[in-house]
Order: sequence, then C-alpha cells, then structure tokens
Amino acid sequence: MISSAGKKRVIISNVLPSVDDGLFPAKTIINQKLNISADIFADGHDEIAASVLIKYSSEKLWKEYPLALVNNDHWIYSFVPEKIGTYQFQILAWIDAFASWKNGFEKKYNAGQEVDVELKIGVQIVEGALKNATGKNKAQLQQWLSLLNETEGIEEKGSLIKNNTITEALYKSKDKSRVTTYPRIFDITVERERAGFSTWYELFPRSASAEPGAHGTFSDVIKILPRISRMGFDVLYFPPIHPIGKVNRKGRNNSLKANDDDPGSPWAIGNEKGGHKEIHSQLGTIKDFKKLVQESKKYGLEVAMDIAFQCAPDHPYVLKHPSWFKWRPDGTVQHAENPPKKYEDILPFNFESEDWEGLWKELKSVIEYWIGTGVSIFRVDNPHTKAIPFWEWVIKEIKNQYPETIFLAEAFTRPRIMERLAKIGFTQSYTYFTWRHTKKELEEYVTELTQTNLKYYFRPNFWPNTPDILTPELAAGKENGHIIRLLLAATLSSSYGIYGPVYELNIDEPMPGKEEYIHNEKYEIKHWNWDFYTKTYEIISRINRIRKENASLHSTINIKFAETTNEQIICYVKYDEDYKNVLIIAVNLDPRNTHSANIKLPLLEGFEWDDNITVHDLLNGDKYHWKGDWNYVELNPYDMPAHVLRVAVNNTI
Amino acid sequence: MISSAGKKRVIISNVLPSVDDGLFPAKTIINQKLNISADIFADGHDEIAASVLIKYSSEKLWKEYPLALVNNDHWIYSFVPEKIGTYQFQILAWIDAFASWKNGFEKKYNAGQEVDVELKIGVQIVEGALKNATGKNKAQLQQWLSLLNETEGIEEKGSLIKNNTITEALYKSKDKSRVTTYPRIFDITVERERAGFSTWYELFPRSASAEPGAHGTFSDVIKILPRISRMGFDVLYFPPIHPIGKVNRKGRNNSLKANDDDPGSPWAIGNEKGGHKEIHSQLGTIKDFKKLVQESKKYGLEVAMDIAFQCAPDHPYVLKHPSWFKWRPDGTVQHAENPPKKYEDILPFNFESEDWEGLWKELKSVIEYWIGTGVSIFRVDNPHTKAIPFWEWVIKEIKNQYPETIFLAEAFTRPRIMERLAKIGFTQSYTYFTWRHTKKELEEYVTELTQTNLKYYFRPNFWPNTPDILTPELAAGKENGHIIRLLLAATLSSSYGIYGPVYELNIDEPMPGKEEYIHNEKYEIKHWNWDFYTKTYEIISRINRIRKENASLHSTINIKFAETTNEQIICYVKYDEDYKNVLIIAVNLDPRNTHSANIKLPLLEGFEWDDNITVHDLLNGDKYHWKGDWNYVELNPYDMPAHVLRVAVNNTI
Repeated sequence: MISSAGKKRVIISNVLPSVDDGLFPAKTIINQKLNISADIFADGHDEIAASVLIKYSSEKLWKEYPLALVNNDHWIYSFVPEKIGTYQFQILAWIDAFASWKNGFEKKYNAGQEVDVELKIGVQIVEGALKNATGKNKAQLQQWLSLLNETEGIEEKGSLIKNNTITEALYKSKDKSRVTTYPRIFDITVERERAGFSTWYELFPRSASAEPGAHGTFSDVIKILPRISRMGFDVLYFPPIHPIGKVNRKGRNNSLKANDDDPGSPWAIGNEKGGHKEIHSQLGTIKDFKKLVQESKKYGLEVAMDIAFQCAPDHPYVLKHPSWFKWRPDGTVQHAENPPKKYEDILPFNFESEDWEGLWKELKSVIEYWIGTGVSIFRVDNPHTKAIPFWEWVIKEIKNQYPETIFLAEAFTRPRIMERLAKIGFTQSYTYFTWRHTKKELEEYVTELTQTNLKYYFRPNFWPNTPDILTPELAAGKENGHIIRLLLAATLSSSYGIYGPVYELNIDEPMPGKEEYIHNEKYEIKHWNWDFYTKTYEIISRINRIRKENASLHSTINIKFAETTNEQIICYVKYDEDYKNVLIIAVNLDPRNTHSANIKLPLLEGFEWDDNITVHDLLNGDKYHWKGDWNYVELNPYDMPAHVLRVAVNNTI
Repeated sequence: MISSAGKKRVIISNVLPSVDDGLFPAKTIINQKLNISADIFADGHDEIAASVLIKYSSEKLWKEYPLALVNNDHWIYSFVPEKIGTYQFQILAWIDAFASWKNGFEKKYNAGQEVDVELKIGVQIVEGALKNATGKNKAQLQQWLSLLNETEGIEEKGSLIKNNTITEALYKSKDKSRVTTYPRIFDITVERERAGFSTWYELFPRSASAEPGAHGTFSDVIKILPRISRMGFDVLYFPPIHPIGKVNRKGRNNSLKANDDDPGSPWAIGNEKGGHKEIHSQLGTIKDFKKLVQESKKYGLEVAMDIAFQCAPDHPYVLKHPSWFKWRPDGTVQHAENPPKKYEDILPFNFESEDWEGLWKELKSVIEYWIGTGVSIFRVDNPHTKAIPFWEWVIKEIKNQYPETIFLAEAFTRPRIMERLAKIGFTQSYTYFTWRHTKKELEEYVTELTQTNLKYYFRPNFWPNTPDILTPELAAGKENGHIIRLLLAATLSSSYGIYGPVYELNIDEPMPGKEEYIHNEKYEIKHWNWDFYTKTYEIISRINRIRKENASLHSTINIKFAETTNEQIICYVKYDEDYKNVLIIAVNLDPRNTHSANIKLPLLEGFEWDDNITVHDLLNGDKYHWKGDWNYVELNPYDMPAHVLRVAVNNTI
C-alpha cells in the first residue's frame, strides 16, 4: 500500500516543549514567554512555511500562529499563555511555493537573466492558490494579480513582487493536501506564578503557643504570622492537623512506647474522633482553621496542607472500609514494614484492593474537602509509597476543577520515581539538594535539573532541612552552615523552604550517630521563643526580599556556572529573559574558613559582558568594579559567606 | 472517569533501543547481542518482575523472556536476533507478590521473628496464583503447596521456600489485571553483517581498460578485481552505468559545452537508447553486467549500484511521463537550478506530481530490476533532493521483500535531514567526516555519532574523498595526508570507502581555488596504470586486513577517546563486547612533521588496564610495553603516521 502522504514533502520532528514525546504535558507559568519549537525541513531547496495551532483545552477553535526559522532547521513561536489550565498545540508545515518562486525570481532578475517566463510561473502559483482561497483572501489575491498584470515594465513588476502584500492571504489559502501535520497534539499545563516561584516555611502549629507547656492552637499561629511574613515567606506549611492515633502511638525520640502525655506523630492520622477530614481538637475548630487561612493571606502567606494518605490503627476507615487494608490470616491488619523493621503505628492503604475505585474517590474527596476551606497548596507526604496511577488520576481530576492547586511531592526517593511523579502532574518536588554539598555535586545536580529534559516538567523545591533531616553540614556548620545552605537554596532554586523555627534559631543538635534532630518535634510539643532574632533570621529576611525584587531569581533554569579557582567557592550567574536583571552569586562553601578565588564570568548566549562592570552586592550594599573576564573574590563566613552581585546593565541597576 | 489501570502499579518508561519513542525502528546486526531495556519501578518496596515479548514480524506468537534489574531501576534483556528482517518487542511488568513475600519472610525469619502467620500469607499468595494457572504450572504449584504442608519444622519449611522451584510457574500464572504493558510495540530492523561492517571501493568502469584511449567495459573491470580484492575491499561501487544524456551534455572539467567525443557525466541519465533500466552500450550488455556481479563475488566483492533518480533532457521518461516533470509556461521542462545557477543537463522529478503514485511505483521497479541482476547494495545519489516520504515507502517495500538490501545515503546535507533519512530506513550514510580534520573536530563528531541516540539508527560510512571532493588535507598532504585520512576513516568507522584508483595513486591536483579534482573523471574517460603500487596501496591493504581480523573494528560505537598532550596526536581505544579484542590507535594528524605525545588510557566500564601492558603494533609488527596510565608515543608521518596497537589481554594476543 502506498502512503497517503505522497505530496506532503515537509518533515516535522523534535517538537518542544514535550515530555516523552507528548505522553505527558510540559509545564509553564502564566504570562511567561514559552518557546514552542520543532525541527522542520524538506528535500531540496524550496522555502518552507510553518505554523502552530493553539487552543485552551476547553475551547473548540484553534488559532494559527506562524513559526519562524531560527537556525539549523529549528523553528520557533514564542507563546505567552494568559490563562492557567491546559493548552494544546499542534504543528503544521508546508512548502511555500510562492516564496520559493519569489526567491528564485529575484536572484535571476538580479543576475540579469530573462524573467518573462518566470513571471508567468508566479502568476500560475497565485492562480493555484486562488482555488483554495475564500472571502477577503480571494479578493486580495485577485486584486494583486490584476495589479501585476496592469503594471508596465519588468522593474516595476519586480518591485511589486518584492514588496508583495499577499503573504498572509497565500498563507491562509494553502493546499491542504500538501500540508504535513505532526501526528501528535501536545498539552501544556499552565500554572500560577507561585507554582514556579515560592518560599516555604514549615512549622508545627502545636508548638506555636507563647505559654510554656501549653498546646499551641491556630490562634497562636495567627500571632506569629507577622514574624514569618517579615522573613519574606509566602507559603506556610503545616504537618498534618488531624486527630492522632492512640494505638501503638510513638513516644519521644521515636520510642516504641508513648507516655500518657506524649502527643504522638501528626503523620499517624486518625483515631476514634475522626480521620483525614477532621481537625485535632487541641488545635482548634474548622472555623479557627479557616480564619487562620484568611489571616495568613493578609500577610502574603498561603497555607499549605499536608496530604499523608496512611492511617493510624484506630482511624475510622479501618472499621468502615476494611477492604482498603491488607488483612493477615490471624485477623490483624498489615502495618507498614520494611522487614525486619516494623512501623506498628501506621497502616498503609492497599492500592490493589478490589475496592480501589472506592478508595480513590474517597482520597480525592479529602483533597476537595480542604480546598473547600480555602487551601490550594498541598505538600504530599511520601507519594512514592502510594500507587502512581492514583496520583496521575487524582491530580488531573483536581486540577481540571481547581487549576490553581499546587502539589509538592515529598519524593525523597530514587531518580526515576521522582521524575515520574513530576511527569504525571506534581507541581513541585523535593530534591537531592539536601545531600549535595560540594561544588562539583551542586554544579552537576543543578545542571541536570536545568539543562536536560527535566526542565520541561520537574520543578525543584530546595530544602536545607526538614523535620526528618539535619545534615552534618548544618549540625557541624553551626550558624555559618545554616546561612550558607540557605543562601544556596534561595538562589539556586526559585522555590525553596525551611523547617522552622529550628532553622533560623540555628538548632543543630543531632541524635547521636544520625542525621536527625534529637528531641524531634515530630514526637513532642516544643516551646519556642518567637521573639528571638539571629543573624540567620536577618539573612533569611534579606535574601527573600532580594528574591522578590530580582526577576532572575523567579526561575530555576536560567543559570550558568562560572569557573572558579577554588573548590570551596561556587559561583553562578542568574539572568532574566532580556538580561535586564543579571546577578553574579558567589558562595564560600566552607563555614569555618575564609576563602578567595578568581572567577571567570561565563559566556551567555545573547549577552555580552562589558569590559568594565559595576556590581552592587545586594546582601550588604557594597559596590565593586568587575571586568569582563577574571575577577577576585574573598569571602569570610563569619562576616558574610556570599556575594549576591547585581550587574549594572546599560548603566542602570 | 476513573482510569482502568487501577491495580497496575508498575511503571515502564524509557524503553530502548528506540528511535523517537517507537516512531521509527532501531537498527541492529544479525547474531549480535542487543540490549533491550527499560526503566521499571513501582511505589513502595515490593519486588518487581518484568519481561519482554519478542516476535519476528511475520510470526503470530510472541515469546516471553525475563528482564533483569541492572541498576537505578533499569532492566535489561540481552537479545540475539537470528534472522534478518524486522523483529517487534513489547515490555511487560508486574508486582511479584511471591518474591516480595519471600523477601520479607526470610528477613523476619533471620531476625528470629515469629513467622507462622507469614507462612500462611505465602500459602495464600500461591493459592491466588493457582487461579490463573493451567496445566503443568498448576500441577507444580499444587505439588509445592502439598510439599510445604507436609514438611515438618519451620527450618525445613524455610529452606523449601528459599530454594523454591516455582518461580517459573508463578511467572506464567500472573494476574493479568495487575500487569502493566508499555503502550507501544517497538520495531527492530535486523540487517546482515555488511550493513554494519563494510569497506567500499568506488571506480568508474569506463576507465577500466588497460588500453589507453579505449572505453572501459565490464570485462575490463573483471580483470582488475584481483587488485581490488588484494587491497581488502568488500563492496565495489560503480557510478551510474546507464545511457548518458546527449542534450546539454557537460564537457571536460564541467564545461557547459561538450565536444563530440566527450562522454558526459554518468549522473545525467538517459537518452534515446533508454534510461534507468538500461546499460550504456559501451560498457557491455546486461549479460556482461551479471557476469561481473558473479565474478566479483568470487573475490569477496559485492557490486553496489548507484541510484540517481533524475533525468537527462533526452531520457525516455520525459516523453512517456510528462506529468513526472515540471513544465514551464513556455513549453520547456524545468531543469535543476540553484538560482542564479542552472544545471541544464539534469531534470529533477516533480514529487508533487498529480501522478506521484505512478512515479513512486516506477522508481521502485528500477530498484527491483537491478536486484534481479544480483545486486543488493545501492548507493543513493543525493537522496535529500527527492521527497523523503518516497524513500520511507520504497525502502520499506524493498526491504520487506529483500531484507538483505543495503542502502547507502549520499546525504551530504544538513544534520536534521541526514538524521531523518537514517530514521526512515537508509542502512548507512555519508557523513561530515570528510570535513572534520582537527583532533577536536574528530572527537566531537565521533562522540556525537556514537554516544547519543544516533547510535540506534545512524550508521556512518566515512569517505576521505569522492569524485566530487578533494579536500585540502589530501591535496596539500600528498601521500602522507592520504595515508593519515585513510587510517582515520578505517579505524574510526566500521564502514568506510574511497574513490579510487585516484586515492591509492595519491592523485592530488585540485581545480584551482576549489576542493575538487581537476580533469575530473566525472566528465572524461581516464586511463589508469592498474599495476602501479604505492605506499598508500600497501597501507590500505594492511589496515583492511587488520579490520577483518579485529572484532573491535566491526562496530563504530565501541570507542573511547584518550587524553593526549599534543593537539596533533589523536588517540582512541576500540574494544569488542568481552574486551577480548582491545586496540589502542594513535594517529599523527600532521602530514609534514613528527609529533610526540603522552597518552592517558581512558576508563572503560567493565575492563581494567593492567599495570604492565604488552601491545603489538599491527601496522608494522613492533612490540611495546605500556603502563596502565600515561604512555609516550612518537609518530613520524614519513615513516608511519599511526600506531594500531593490539593489547595482550590475559597474556594472549
């Protein structure tokens, strides 16, 4: 059988942005320029025309926009999505017979060749297009043909052709039997700005009370909103706020036996008072929670909920939906385990349950319930221990109805699984940043995140610490270590977060032999001095203000590393699209010693370094003069372990 | 709507080998090991099982083979295709409930935990599998359950489980509702050995006569077969052997006016005596040609035909099928052009003809005609100036019927077009090697060909010269330059070719100011001394023998470049799959000066360099002792510009 594509000579391939060639949507941010591109070519030397059809998913009609050739057969259209949700696009291309002819005509004419016959060929081409033309386009083509006919003299005709006004009309009158259409339609998920640029602060509301010994409440959290807001955060994330299981409850320091007054881990969700849709009564009521969500907004803070889809043994689901759990032959429910280790305070859901549909729908309703309270950011606990097809379905369902929803995957897991969770819809993901410390490790990891296909779908969120992780760099690095890791997180990734107030208070005592906090807040109520200020607090506030004011820090992928002569000094340049905002950031990775280095500024495509550059250090106000090649820095970690240098572009800063 | 994939927890992605995620087949060679692989993982810690279904395209039944986990969630099955043609494969994966349970059971048992209930769970799992089991598998599972039941003592039961014999039976009794099937079926094109390893010699038969002034014949070519065979070539490629157009025939040195005795370019095909299915009568008859094809085989040479789908103005097609050409309003046929340049001796086919189907079928019949004479290798002239969908169709059609057919694309064109021609079926392609001269250029280009996705579908064929190209490196490099470029082509690519005898005779006079031969054989009949031997001839013979005897030179992608301390010395290691054949090749790129360098041997995955290495230079028989790190070489281009060092592995060479 002969292909039906006989006359479709143009080839389209390598369509971008795409993830697994269209199996998953690429991600972007509303009102940001997105390059839609493809490799487009044909046999021979004919001129090609190409366009992209774009529509918002719920629209019926496609709009057509022209692609332009950039280089090496790669064509681009810069698209700025103006709505959040899903857009779709498809690429078309065809031989542009008129442009091919015009090109040859002009060369022959300029070379003094006889062009009478050529002119007739041009007329034939336009007459051919007339057959596909309608309305205004038809009239325009007819008018042009008449004009060409009436024009006297070959030079006058030539100039009419050169300045032709019928490109648009020809474009719209193309012969469909010669148009190649790329066989796949690609989706783009457009999200709100905070999906790509967010600054997270995690705290345990039960430790928010000003009164020692008291159980914190949502009202207590409202009192500390000014402090968190002053530090410049915009997402306030709470561990689960639900009733905590009493059966097999863990005690302080993760001990197997809890004392009567031990509050238990908030991730052991559910007891006889309720489960994932209830609030632990000591924190307050649902009304108090809604008030907190609203008050937070006044301080520029959005509340993020924890989604931990697992149950304490006394969660109401166990009795009501026994089929959602694995039952053992001795009549007990299977608890979580990693043999020979047992986690008897936690029951996982059985995603292979015969009633998996019932389970999926109920879990979806949990997310919907909290959306109903005003929450639209969710931090998902260990998504990699729940069936991945479930997440794909539930995120799509939720985002169809509530496209503003943001899901952060706590996917501290293997690379392929992290990637998959991002592909199937998670907005952001925790990363390996927490364990990348040397210059080489950081450069390699950030390069992988920003220079490979990951950039189309994986949005990193860098966390120097979490309630589960206190790295040796923080524990041994003391305050300087805290400042260094924070500055790296805040400038390497457009989204980052800390678990506080232990972070800004420089709490650094580990469990002996472990990379964890001792006296962990997961198992006990803490009393913090919310009026205590540290250098770390001050630097957090400065860098978060700098982040807000500098567009180059609102995206992660716009980074180039600079060569430095000292392994303890890392340096990178961040820039915005038009190079109006260019930052040179240099960080001393050693919390104990002053280091110096020579730094070579990297090549940036489309930007030239001046020979003499004025830079302002946004961290301390200093002004330096740099050159366009090698420059010297010296960083004392006890003073300030980093420069965040804004480059004066065109004498403005 | 809820996904139907509810219980299918395993994810499959990144299936390899694949080209554009299955849009095009990957290529491989018969009887060579091919790794079929995928990233496979699930939520949680359960054990996974995975398999690949494989079948030859014409077979009905799939065979199933197990994949094994290598690292980082990447699974592999090593497949050795035993037939040429198309194979298909598809990947499956599922949670292995029994293995997951067995794993936990053993850990708990070893930790001294109570396992009575665990044992019952294991029995439940096997009982579950029984529901999907039939025949022998069912019997085996039942027998094992009985045996487990009868076995006394937990230790004995434990050992029965540890040494279980039911993996295979469980594997075949899997619950299909829990099996993930990757949604695409992938094709693999399996070709004969010469598709991947070939050594080409191009000559003009009309210059084959021993008698000065005489037009060479196929019989004359038979007389020089021994010479070509002694040099170690295995493909003998002729420019077109068809009647040559008389209208607008080109004269010597591409002049616009031919003299009466000028033979014309063989690529201007067709005159009143016939076209693409006829033989130029001065060369001989179709019978003579068939005889040449058969005689060549006796010398280990396969004849390759040129396929140049274009016509001289007097080709019979022009009268018989006017619709296959573009007609101008003045009643003339459109000739080839690149305005303002005209090529009036050549008419291109119009692939947008309304009778494109008729054209496609006729062109296919041309290839079939020559296959009928015993030819199965075709060198396709300028495929990038004919519609690409045509090639996709015709190659598929031909290879379905004649899977042994080899197509070499003379695609000296832009990168995306070269790549596309390889994707749609061309077996091999001309490359940019001809213009890659410095160490950096060669390393970058060969790395791109061998370390990117190109390795799955693009098989390079390196040509130092062609009738169209005499590079400055050959023209100015004289005999040394010819030897250097030949050794590079012969060892960097498993397929390479030269245009002779100008190459081995070191003919090097260019057209002034151009990178072309003066007095080009394309426009005149030459008389060569076929009994003249040169150093170049001798080196060609040696390196082609070395190629035959060393498996590491039968593949292009098995290469690692070594660091050297001199930009004029390039060094690379070639190796076979089991590292039984390891070559270190060092070439001095400067034809005029002796150079020396220190060379650092590269890291090879799965191979360790001994501290003391014995190497034998296969070019001259010398023996050296190398160390496993840095080594010294000195290469005099007037003596021998290269080492081809075979490494003694396990004291054998």
